[in-house]
Amino acid sequence: MAVYALPRRVSWGDCDPAGILYTPRVFDYCTQALECWYAEVMDLDWITMNRDHNLGSPMVHAACDYLSPMAPGLHLAVEVWIEALGGSSLTFRLDGKDAAGTLYFRAKYVACITDFAQARAVPIPAGLRARAEAYRAGCSSCEENEPSITRP
Amino acid sequence: MAVYALPRRVSWGDCDPAGILYTPRVFDYCTQALECWYAEVMDLDWITMNRDHNLGSPMVHAACDYLSPMAPGLHLAVEVWIEALGGSSLTFRLDGKDAAGTLYFRAKYVACITDFAQARAVPIPAGLRARAEAYRAGCSSCEENEPSITRP
Amino acid sequence: MAVYALPRRVSWGDCDPAGILYTPRVFDYCTQALECWYAEVMDLDWITMNRDHNLGSPMVHAACDYLSPMAPGLHLAVEVWIEALGGSSLTFRLDGKDAAGTLYFRAKYVACITDFAQARAVPIPAGLRARAEAYRAGCSSCEENEPSITRP
Amino acid sequence: MAVYALPRRVSWGDCDPAGILYTPRVFDYCTQALECWYAEVMDLDWITMNRDHNLGSPMVHAACDYLSPMAPGLHLAVEVWIEALGGSSLTFRLDGKDAAGTLYFRAKYVACITDFAQARAVPIPAGLRARAEAYRAGCSSCEENEPSITRP
Repeated sequence: MAVYALPRRVSWGDCDPAGILYTPRVFDYCTQALECWYAEVMDLDWITMNRDHNLGSPMVHAACDYLSPMAPGLHLAVEVWIEALGGSSLTFRLDGKDAAGTLYFRAKYVACITDFAQARAVPIPAGLRARAEAYRAGCSSCEENEPSITRP
Repeated sequence: MAVYALPRRVSWGDCDPAGILYTPRVFDYCTQALECWYAEVMDLDWITMNRDHNLGSPMVHAACDYLSPMAPGLHLAVEVWIEALGGSSLTFRLDGKDAAGTLYFRAKYVACITDFAQARAVPIPAGLRARAEAYRAGCSSCEENEPSITRP
Repeated sequence: MAVYALPRRVSWGDCDPAGILYTPRVFDYCTQALECWYAEVMDLDWITMNRDHNLGSPMVHAACDYLSPMAPGLHLAVEVWIEALGGSSLTFRLDGKDAAGTLYFRAKYVACITDFAQARAVPIPAGLRARAEAYRAGCSSCEENEPSITRP
Repeated sequence: MAVYALPRRVSWGDCDPAGILYTPRVFDYCTQALECWYAEVMDLDWITMNRDHNLGSPMVHAACDYLSPMAPGLHLAVEVWIEALGGSSLTFRLDGKDAAGTLYFRAKYVACITDFAQARAVPIPAGLRARAEAYRAGCSSCEENEPSITRP
């Protein structure tokens, strides 16, 4: 089993007049990686959660360490790791790496499964929890075998 | 009666590595100017249209002529002019000017009042039409008195 | 020879509270398709043009017809067609289609090769012109064979 | 002396199909608040730092706690507080509040003054440090008098 990674090219318009990634754009990358992970790996897309179940996975926390400047044309893989599963919350680590394994950013997101009708946190649905636990278990074996990260 | 104008500062992150406004950002400026015009001048905000009436004002056409490069820190006013009112459609002109009257961009938007339940165009609601016609009439007298535009 | 097309998934965050693509986002898709076309097909990336030659390809006009609503999860191909080559300008048509060939949007961009040091238009460099003409010729045979477009 | 606050209206396009602010957009608000604080309060705009001194203030860390959902039309003030001044780094707290003082988000940014020519951290320039210290001292008296924050 492999860690899910969304490929992403740093675009010209993602960068600012200093020629490097504009601070907020890394969160676009990470949120889209999570959206695709939900849809492709959890088989649960956000629009279905919202429309059919009035549920959502809004973030209560998002953070990023910027480890190396990112310039237009850089090809990244944004890896999705689960750090923790709580009653209602999922804690993710998102790593932005190039093909050589160099780490450009490391982000942390905490999502909280929310019932929008009641406007409150609810337990992670059983099907999602089972899949997320299986994913996490599969990734932990990857992590052991992962080469140590090279910082640029 | 005055033309409605949304003030807007060109931000660092709106600009690209060439140091000028990234092409798509002008449409953020224009769409936000229209959103605020609906809310403040038409007294009809998009969220209320959507939630209470299942109506919307999606754009069927958007276009912009870029007349002068825009750099971070530039203060613009984005003016909202009505060019035409059809059965279901509203055609807008949006002018981006600085305090000296210099025109940086001129955009055109065509919105179509849409019933999302039926997924089809519907007549402009009477209240909105009346307000839009009054606004347009008020602006036309402004236009006559407007000094000719200086291109930078 | 094939028409260049950038694959693009409509993301949750590209859509607004009505659940459809927010008007300005289509221009992000189109500008990125052009950026990748320059880099991959013309072998000329914007950062090199800017840094090494002080040249750029800023847009003087951008326009889009929105033909069908786009929702999160939609997979599009953004095709890049050359409509015209002038002395300094390149006119593009950008078509957003799904896998079935349904056309969701059609955009037009006019780029103007610009010398930033002189802040004025300059002739399209010979190498770029030759490649662009070859690309255009190759695409015109595609177009003849293209099935008529289905509007949704 | 007052805490600097950038007014910001949550726009329709800043929100996602769940009708609430899309996670990454809060970082657009915060980064723009810092940009304006630099320009207006520190009298040092990022474009001048970049062009004239080859210096920048890139972020090495950005984080946000989302305390209450934000919907289109909400008017916020994004307050800029200095938490710490290091040798090269400035640590900011950014609070997003409505007119009633309700806190919607609290963010933390760490900026690092960087010499782009050398690609390394450099000491905060003396003029910037003096202004930042004066600002911080002025704010600390504000904070003592600040009413306790109401969470919605």
